Amino acid sequence: MKIAIDGMGGDHAPGEIVKGCLEALKQISHEIYIIGDEQKIQNELNKYTYNKEKVAIVHTTEIITSEDQPVKSIRSKNDSSMVVGMNMVKNGEVDVFISAGNTGALMAGALFILGRIPGIDRPALASVYPNPAMKKACLLVDAGANAECKVNNLVEFAIMGSIYCEKVLNIENPRVGLVNIGTEDEKGTKTVKDAYKIMKKTDLNFIGNVEARELQNNICDVIVCDGFVGNVILKLSEGVALTFVQLLKNKISESFLAKAGALIMYKKLKELKTDLDYSEYGGAPILGVKGAIVKIHGNSESNAVKNAILKAIPYVENNVVSIIHDEVVKYHELEQKEDSDE
Amino acid sequence: MKIAIDGMGGDHAPGEIVKGCLEALKQISHEIYIIGDEQKIQNELNKYTYNKEKVAIVHTTEIITSEDQPVKSIRSKNDSSMVVGMNMVKNGEVDVFISAGNTGALMAGALFILGRIPGIDRPALASVYPNPAMKKACLLVDAGANAECKVNNLVEFAIMGSIYCEKVLNIENPRVGLVNIGTEDEKGTKTVKDAYKIMKKTDLNFIGNVEARELQNNICDVIVCDGFVGNVILKLSEGVALTFVQLLKNKISESFLAKAGALIMYKKLKELKTDLDYSEYGGAPILGVKGAIVKIHGNSESNAVKNAILKAIPYVENNVVSIIHDEVVKYHELEQKEDSDE
Repeated sequence: MKIAIDGMGGDHAPGEIVKGCLEALKQISHEIYIIGDEQKIQNELNKYTYNKEKVAIVHTTEIITSEDQPVKSIRSKNDSSMVVGMNMVKNGEVDVFISAGNTGALMAGALFILGRIPGIDRPALASVYPNPAMKKACLLVDAGANAECKVNNLVEFAIMGSIYCEKVLNIENPRVGLVNIGTEDEKGTKTVKDAYKIMKKTDLNFIGNVEARELQNNICDVIVCDGFVGNVILKLSEGVALTFVQLLKNKISESFLAKAGALIMYKKLKELKTDLDYSEYGGAPILGVKGAIVKIHGNSESNAVKNAILKAIPYVENNVVSIIHDEVVKYHELEQKEDSDE
Repeated sequence: MKIAIDGMGGDHAPGEIVKGCLEALKQISHEIYIIGDEQKIQNELNKYTYNKEKVAIVHTTEIITSEDQPVKSIRSKNDSSMVVGMNMVKNGEVDVFISAGNTGALMAGALFILGRIPGIDRPALASVYPNPAMKKACLLVDAGANAECKVNNLVEFAIMGSIYCEKVLNIENPRVGLVNIGTEDEKGTKTVKDAYKIMKKTDLNFIGNVEARELQNNICDVIVCDGFVGNVILKLSEGVALTFVQLLKNKISESFLAKAGALIMYKKLKELKTDLDYSEYGGAPILGVKGAIVKIHGNSESNAVKNAILKAIPYVENNVVSIIHDEVVKYHELEQKEDSDE
């Protein structure tokens, strides 16, 4: 298979992107296309010894920045690394495109260039959500692409998330949970209550409502919520973890004895930081479009790039996109049957 | 002033409730009415030496449990500590009622027994949200009473929260932030975008959208969101903090050296736990009803009870309920003026 990556997206491009590609190439034998300013990318490549047969640069002249307006930039910057990369997926020249660039633009591009899988109303961004104390991770859908969601959107997120979990994250019969403000089935907004009823009827391994307090306790494998709540979950988890680290630092710096203790604990405290590092789980796929597109964090360093590449392989090889297509067709058939039965 | 407290609500009633009342009485000279089973409450009181002129028991025979259906229990259990307490507020026999009991029932009772302040569409639960690393706290409205919110609800939450912050938490000109998935004004759902526009026009100290990542960074004093998102924020913050504590414990238990280090840091690690203890900030008022009702956490111990009593005093003495009434009238006048100007 062939993997394309945005050489210009993110805070550390192209340096960390190139480094991550070469790290991945130590473990795989697929071809990688790095898209962007040829000279800049070549300068980075020249710092390393690598198998030149496995790496190609696709030269582009434009860049979509994080400040660019998503839809406008996708429509006007035809020679940007992002637009060129997604067109390569569309034309079958590569099997997957990975980018650390502007999330909104990547989402808009996936919609305009690749288009939705028939039956999917709204594609979603699916982010890995780590449960660090459990040494596990689950998948959060939607992570922020759709602030406003209808019932069907939530059900489709559940179906797509479940497939990705099984095929890429190797979780058998993934447990699907619906974020709600209580575990009882009459809790929440009308949309969430209706989504609950439908999910109960599908053949998903639906475990019901899950409360935010439990999300890091391995309560389920697929966390389903609208993009507003998903965004709050991701950003708040990050914020609270940072607060805790800060609090710990403050406490340690307050006394000599605590400093001595921390010094002894140093290695363990460093491990703590690693446990909170999400990058080892790979990137966030845009599920529901006709092609494999993966978003990685804007501040991704080489390790995150490498892991996104490695996780992109089962995403492509296990045909996640076409399985989503088949399962969504099945779901809509079930829905129609239900409607005609009523 | 006269303070009533639910002697039967919460996991540690009546023991910790009684203990908390007596601890508060060491600092204040107001009268406290403890409502519930007279014998059980008296047995707890008998464990202490206290000023008998300041404590009265109001005997009731029924209890609303945490499993009870809120509306039904408020309507049927007329001699429950909760219903009796709220009726005492309504009849002017006491100035405030505090309860660690069933939140839904307390909310329903506040609505049915006291009624809404004219102009308030939906009363809200306002919870203190600590920023532990900053040694500050802000107020989160709504903390979970209204899963589904309209534009006006969010604006009313902002007005009420701002008044409570100023009058009870002693924060001058409180900064109001609207939870959103980005800081730009075109972000989020239609409801949030419309609320943003209106808040800009009020004389609130509105700082605009705030992202979940910043909520513990003293970004604002009043956090405004619907009750679904508010509930997610509170429960997730708790969940992530517990994960972190667990992670730290795991790391420490993994090696002898880390254990030794932790032993030296022990006092500081214990302080960390205190910093994460929210109870010192007082209870959560139900804002928007015609009377002062304060919810405290179901697992409240005496310290939380004491602090809720202490914070209830400025809530009553600074006339928060009548100021909310006046400010909401002003807001609706502004709104009508805007409508007629258009």
